Amino acid sequence: MKTLRDIGEDELIERLVALVPRDSSPAAGPGDDCAVVDRGPAADRLELLKTDALVEGVHFLADAGPAAVGWKAAARVVSDFAAMGGLPERFLITLALPVATSVDWAEGFYRGFGRCLEAFGAVVAGGETSRVPDGSAKVISVAATGSVARDRVVLRSTAKPGDLIFVTGLLGGSLGGRHLDFMPRVREADWLVSHHKPTAMMDLSDGLAKDLPRLAAASQCGFEIDRGAIPVSEGSSIDAALGDGEDFELLFTFDPPAAPALEREWRAAFPDLPLTAIGRMTRAGEGGSLTGGWDHFRAV
Amino acid sequence: MKTLRDIGEDELIERLVALVPRDSSPAAGPGDDCAVVDRGPAADRLELLKTDALVEGVHFLADAGPAAVGWKAAARVVSDFAAMGGLPERFLITLALPVATSVDWAEGFYRGFGRCLEAFGAVVAGGETSRVPDGSAKVISVAATGSVARDRVVLRSTAKPGDLIFVTGLLGGSLGGRHLDFMPRVREADWLVSHHKPTAMMDLSDGLAKDLPRLAAASQCGFEIDRGAIPVSEGSSIDAALGDGEDFELLFTFDPPAAPALEREWRAAFPDLPLTAIGRMTRAGEGGSLTGGWDHFRAV
Repeated sequence: MKTLRDIGEDELIERLVALVPRDSSPAAGPGDDCAVVDRGPAADRLELLKTDALVEGVHFLADAGPAAVGWKAAARVVSDFAAMGGLPERFLITLALPVATSVDWAEGFYRGFGRCLEAFGAVVAGGETSRVPDGSAKVISVAATGSVARDRVVLRSTAKPGDLIFVTGLLGGSLGGRHLDFMPRVREADWLVSHHKPTAMMDLSDGLAKDLPRLAAASQCGFEIDRGAIPVSEGSSIDAALGDGEDFELLFTFDPPAAPALEREWRAAFPDLPLTAIGRMTRAGEGGSLTGGWDHFRAV
Repeated sequence: MKTLRDIGEDELIERLVALVPRDSSPAAGPGDDCAVVDRGPAADRLELLKTDALVEGVHFLADAGPAAVGWKAAARVVSDFAAMGGLPERFLITLALPVATSVDWAEGFYRGFGRCLEAFGAVVAGGETSRVPDGSAKVISVAATGSVARDRVVLRSTAKPGDLIFVTGLLGGSLGGRHLDFMPRVREADWLVSHHKPTAMMDLSDGLAKDLPRLAAASQCGFEIDRGAIPVSEGSSIDAALGDGEDFELLFTFDPPAAPALEREWRAAFPDLPLTAIGRMTRAGEGGSLTGGWDHFRAV
């Protein structure tokens, strides 16, 4: 009997989406950071939909501060909206918790969640609570709606061979704590789509080694990376920068002729956040490869 | 240290919603079956948002057929849209599963989920998968968007003293199997809001004894019930009809003068589904009370 461990996350998703009626809205296929809903040409904004989950023992440890877990639960989703050039709007939270969970934990979680929403102008529209059997991990699921101006949306499937590949910030070592208190790159993404629109973009949630191949596959391209150019967090390593995951930085591709102006103006706008060119998109079947990164059903 | 078991579900929700920024859209407060988003008078339909969760060992047993669990996961949410007079549109699914889960289980779940969406014209717009630690319960979280015509939406907070209280179908005994294969009352609710609009409505998910007091509290009313009039499923009991939960029938209130026409036309439209008047709304502080029903954090 085949299990999820045998096939891994990407094959599982591919098999499952084939089994259900799908959204015919053509703006984005499954596998982008958010689903895109186009309500017709009269709407100047596209609607974005996203769901995400945090599991105790997988995404946070049992002794993590509840407010930090709450921040992370909201910030991961905010980061997905940023990855498409959009903004979050309304959140739905599902808490599945053992009955022995302290009220303090649940309230702390909600406080941290609320702080992140306030920071980005979003609100809670609804929620659901359920118990899980004693001994089961806490599971938090977050769903949200957002929007993006029609002419500013950036997909992950629209990179072209020859595009430069950029990442924001420093990668690797998120488990040292940054995975719980990171700042979603909403402001930076908004600046990019307004001033220097990427050809494709996503956020780095499962590690560059996992996410760049996903962007390339969605764009029907290959890629080549200069490993030495990868911006590594202090105390971390290139392998960690490739494989740790949960960096929540922006990964985007860009038209080469405009890159010098992008880099110059980025330094002026965000002097404290590095922007690094790490490689170039190629035609499909050419370029290099990357292995590793976070797979939910194999990383055990 | 207070735990969730000590305070129960309703107090927990009340505490939590006070801690986060809330939706200022005035159409429905928290605690209705769905959140209602009003995009302004130019939009002739209101947007509905809903999230819900299914937990192994709580909402389904480990040996339940995965397709039935998938049907239930979708149908519960479809029922919430029906409860407001609306229709479901786009679904997001989160599967949090142990890595030892069989691929067959996940695919069976998706098939059942998809069958329910097809039956009601809805689609999957996105999803998320995560592992849970070995030994943890499977958790499935579903979020969905839907819509309802502005003049047809029915809230649970708009019943008036004197209104008759109706339920559809027969109550109690859902654990015999109906909780896994029930048919959400979409057609019936759509007929009601088009022909005989209720003054307030909700679906019965936690049992009449839990849900009617919620409708009454939201409407700032009391209620009195004729226990003998409660329509009980064959082989079940009045106590089960009050407390089992997961009936997924419609509970609604109605203006008395129009009730004879409603009952007559209902019988013609839905000859196989009973519609029963079980009592009457009263002023707040008057009428009777009900205790029992399903509380996620106490029913253990």
